[in-house]
Amino acid sequence: MSRPDEEFRSRPSRLATRLAEEGLFACVLEYFENLRASHVRWLSGHPMDAILVLAASGESVLVPWDVNMAAERARVDRVVPYTDFKRSYKEAVASVLRSLGLPEDAKVEFLPRTSHLRYEELRRELPGTAIVARGDGIDAILSRMRSRKDAAEITALERAASITDEVLDLVEREVRSRSAGSLREVDVAQLVEREALARGAEGTGFETLAAGPARSWGIHAFPPYTAGPFGGAGLSILDFGVKVDGYTTDVTATFARGPLSPDRERMLSLVQAAYDAAVAAVKPGAAPQAPAIAADQVFEAAGWKMPHALGHGIGLDSHEAPLLRSTGENPERELASGMVFTIEPGLYHPDLGGVRLENDVLIDGRGAAPAARVLTRSRLVRLG
Amino acid sequence: MSRPDEEFRSRPSRLATRLAEEGLFACVLEYFENLRASHVRWLSGHPMDAILVLAASGESVLVPWDVNMAAERARVDRVVPYTDFKRSYKEAVASVLRSLGLPEDAKVEFLPRTSHLRYEELRRELPGTAIVARGDGIDAILSRMRSRKDAAEITALERAASITDEVLDLVEREVRSRSAGSLREVDVAQLVEREALARGAEGTGFETLAAGPARSWGIHAFPPYTAGPFGGAGLSILDFGVKVDGYTTDVTATFARGPLSPDRERMLSLVQAAYDAAVAAVKPGAAPQAPAIAADQVFEAAGWKMPHALGHGIGLDSHEAPLLRSTGENPERELASGMVFTIEPGLYHPDLGGVRLENDVLIDGRGAAPAARVLTRSRLVRLG
Repeated sequence: MSRPDEEFRSRPSRLATRLAEEGLFACVLEYFENLRASHVRWLSGHPMDAILVLAASGESVLVPWDVNMAAERARVDRVVPYTDFKRSYKEAVASVLRSLGLPEDAKVEFLPRTSHLRYEELRRELPGTAIVARGDGIDAILSRMRSRKDAAEITALERAASITDEVLDLVEREVRSRSAGSLREVDVAQLVEREALARGAEGTGFETLAAGPARSWGIHAFPPYTAGPFGGAGLSILDFGVKVDGYTTDVTATFARGPLSPDRERMLSLVQAAYDAAVAAVKPGAAPQAPAIAADQVFEAAGWKMPHALGHGIGLDSHEAPLLRSTGENPERELASGMVFTIEPGLYHPDLGGVRLENDVLIDGRGAAPAARVLTRSRLVRLG
Repeated sequence: MSRPDEEFRSRPSRLATRLAEEGLFACVLEYFENLRASHVRWLSGHPMDAILVLAASGESVLVPWDVNMAAERARVDRVVPYTDFKRSYKEAVASVLRSLGLPEDAKVEFLPRTSHLRYEELRRELPGTAIVARGDGIDAILSRMRSRKDAAEITALERAASITDEVLDLVEREVRSRSAGSLREVDVAQLVEREALARGAEGTGFETLAAGPARSWGIHAFPPYTAGPFGGAGLSILDFGVKVDGYTTDVTATFARGPLSPDRERMLSLVQAAYDAAVAAVKPGAAPQAPAIAADQVFEAAGWKMPHALGHGIGLDSHEAPLLRSTGENPERELASGMVFTIEPGLYHPDLGGVRLENDVLIDGRGAAPAARVLTRSRLVRLG
């Protein structure tokens, strides 16, 4: 058995240990239309809609929507089709818990995003059971476990980063080779996806955002891309991720075609300076606020303000722990080895357009001493 | 002022009337990462992340993540940037409610998917206020209102249906013109998107699913498309939607390349027969279970079973009211004029692959008498 596979198999048992420590009989996780927690895939390998019940005993039961998919992918002790419960969530949960030997007065934890209505419904369905839903419970424990990637996860992200770089080089070549205005946003978005798939990626990690000069003022342009022009005079933003084995990168490049007004030049140099300051502040053991504060200071000194957080963890989700922002609560105390996150300062103006530069950084704990390493090579691209 | 615009503007006031009837001071709707309720777009026109507070007085306040986008799109009385509240949900909600003159003992309704944790947090933040979250409250009222499309919505869906048909014709031509195995799933998915955008669509309505013969056994193949072959010997499934002004179609075609085994021939004819029986059972005033029961009977008589519901409403969401299934609770009592929904029987087998046929049906109330009308022209396509 290979080491990555052992690490994968250790995940449910590590969680089961925590369940026992917390005095819980089991936890119920789900990945369904309104509550998509990738914990299910991280623990079971099953990449689609399902309920996963994990007991403190270590036993795991998956209730998938698609049993054929579960047969192909899931690594759990038991699979029970959702149709066995007429697709009733509460019946599926109650039945699986009972099949695991649910004792009287057991504590069972659900995800904190469990709706108030479902919470009350579960309390009625399981009158002898203590229903638990906590912001700082199993969900947070799993998020923390997942925020520090193991060897297989880092390999997937490194592979995804390498494809990301190749794809971005191709996009840059394409934008440079075309006359201004002849390339459309959809062409760029489709080029990214086609080339990612051709290199063995599972797909893009989220909807690619390709916003030409007329639309780059939106932090996330809506719709994400159109048949309108990309890469013409002014500022164009391309934000995309490449997914390998479920793990996605997340990068943004800005394409600036001159001649540019002094205001636009200023935006570009400020974003580059904020990016450099933020990356320099990424150090093992640093507070996750530190890079965000470094970026904020660059903008504030120039009278600008960034309207979003500096960065976020990436992995099975395109937004996960740690969160890098200068204000507000932050569950992570420090940037620790195995963490992979974005650094993405940006500025937006209704008339001038937007500039964002985003790369993915790993706190690499595999060397003699942990060190920050930028995995991707996105950049501000100046044209003509 | 045009009539469609009047209909749009009447939406908040119709809801405000219901709020007053229910004794509510206001309702709080949201479209954010974990709670994406398109009610916000339906009521305000704002298509992205935001909180929308609507008072029984008729006054509406939007708290958007992107103020530039709100300036462009939102039609509300007031816009307050989310950053004014340091992106704190409870602070934004409490502040907006107070600015609307929240009296003591007021009742304020939140969406039923509001998490148990947030529900408790709101109760603490607004101690003098009755926090309401009901499955059969404002959310259900809005879903019912939205299930019967007005003239502008039907126009958008008809336009989307017409583009859908053109795109599907192009795909069929492409699949027919290529030698078996030379076309990839990603080529088909990108052709759909490119041609939809070129015809003025906002985009595709959800991630296009293109599953070649090796992967069509999954109800929803994972990943949705790959660089693997599409349209070769056996059964390939293409499931996509085209979005116009936010409104999406949802169709599925199956491409069957012969020679086919008798089992596969049987699956094709059963799905066609179930589809025909279901469409024949779609009538104004019919129970939403009726078409699903008609399809189930076809499959059951042949010893097969469909592993998913027969259909669902479409609109701003790719899944909305009404739900068409043979068992379980169904909030809609009857198929009423203005409803637009899918009919999509399917069969799946781990070795044989899958067959699904899906079209969109409108209960058209604009003629002398309401009548069912199939808006799209998807089909089972037999090749070679």
